[in-house]
Amino acid sequence: MAAKPPPFERLRVVLVRARNPLNIGAAARAMSNFGFSELRVVKPYEVAFREAQSAVGAEKLLKNAVEYGSLAEAVRDATLVVGTTAIGNRTPRHPVHLLKSAASKIRRRMLSSPVAVLFGSEKWGLSNEELSHCHWLLHVPVRREHRSMNLGQAVAVCLYEIARAAAPPSRSEKPCATSETVERLTSTLLEALDKSGYLTARSEALAEEKLRRLLRRLDLTAADGEVLLGMVHKILWKLGQGTP
Amino acid sequence: MAAKPPPFERLRVVLVRARNPLNIGAAARAMSNFGFSELRVVKPYEVAFREAQSAVGAEKLLKNAVEYGSLAEAVRDATLVVGTTAIGNRTPRHPVHLLKSAASKIRRRMLSSPVAVLFGSEKWGLSNEELSHCHWLLHVPVRREHRSMNLGQAVAVCLYEIARAAAPPSRSEKPCATSETVERLTSTLLEALDKSGYLTARSEALAEEKLRRLLRRLDLTAADGEVLLGMVHKILWKLGQGTP
Repeated sequence: MAAKPPPFERLRVVLVRARNPLNIGAAARAMSNFGFSELRVVKPYEVAFREAQSAVGAEKLLKNAVEYGSLAEAVRDATLVVGTTAIGNRTPRHPVHLLKSAASKIRRRMLSSPVAVLFGSEKWGLSNEELSHCHWLLHVPVRREHRSMNLGQAVAVCLYEIARAAAPPSRSEKPCATSETVERLTSTLLEALDKSGYLTARSEALAEEKLRRLLRRLDLTAADGEVLLGMVHKILWKLGQGTP
Repeated sequence: MAAKPPPFERLRVVLVRARNPLNIGAAARAMSNFGFSELRVVKPYEVAFREAQSAVGAEKLLKNAVEYGSLAEAVRDATLVVGTTAIGNRTPRHPVHLLKSAASKIRRRMLSSPVAVLFGSEKWGLSNEELSHCHWLLHVPVRREHRSMNLGQAVAVCLYEIARAAAPPSRSEKPCATSETVERLTSTLLEALDKSGYLTARSEALAEEKLRRLLRRLDLTAADGEVLLGMVHKILWKLGQGTP
């Protein structure tokens, strides 16, 4: 397998709250093995990020990794955000795809725009709030009795499958809305709902996650995203007018 | 994926000269994730084996791992021995199969008898002598510019693919010769060749590897292996008679 073509540059591997420097290094190494380059790290333990070094042959990739203070920022340019999950005791609120079919979907989207694949912390995986930023979830088929994979190994297995997945014939698709647009729509609509008295203080955090999931289920085109955002902005302005 | 059926117990994961305890633990964890149980370790660095402990959820598997003083011993019950390789500068002297098709072949053999998959040391991989114990080699498709995978990640990717490979429809196959039988045939024939003056002191080591590879290429049935062994034993006896 030779150097990878440009679509491979469209994959963002996002490690969320990684604790172990060895795992960050191992993720970088697997990325380099399989031809990916864009590593993003969200709120790592400071020490973990600084000490990451087991990236034999992937030192540059690791050096170029960017640290983000929030997940929303780290995925803002992606039009598809996929969470990885061990599907434990939590009932997932998202569609879940097995790795093999997930890899095909990811490759198809990579033909046209950036895709982010999220890996949660070693101990807890991805929180519900973090999952609410995802369009759907990816699951590596493991034994029911031992679901929890080592982070570096999970990254390697996912990237192996994404690297070798056939990109299905490209349908002529309209450009998709970026996570940044959808997140702006989320927060603007949330503000409008708040001003409208739809939200109570107690329900606000939960409502935000629900709304985030709902808007991502719509799989908006870029154009529709902008139109909706314009509408909600106007409504919000009007709501502001009503108050003295 | 529930607990794995008996054929999964027929896979032996063999780590040869592993140096890093974290990698031995990671291999054990991936085995447990994907439903395999039989870990064998050949000449590990003593410390590496004793300190292996990152096997979250696979402590028992790791405790049951058996240490061997030689590779021949570690694979003696296997009828198929597969080496993993990064195919670097060495030209392989064996057939090489990409992981996906290799996984199918391995699963097919697992229906009837034990299979060993070998992983070499972190730094050097498998030596030519070690490779001579293999029937063929398996290759994970990685970038040409960065072939060297982390040991724990290589094990995870291989086991993921072997676990999910479809076992092709079982042909009615004759039982295959175990590595023990083929190795006995190798050493007996070598002795006969030595006594016949076929070998020179200088060529002996190389001849052993060549002969080992040749006999494995034959893919002997158990019955044929025994017949050949009987023949060579008789010849060797006769050669002994001739000397005063």
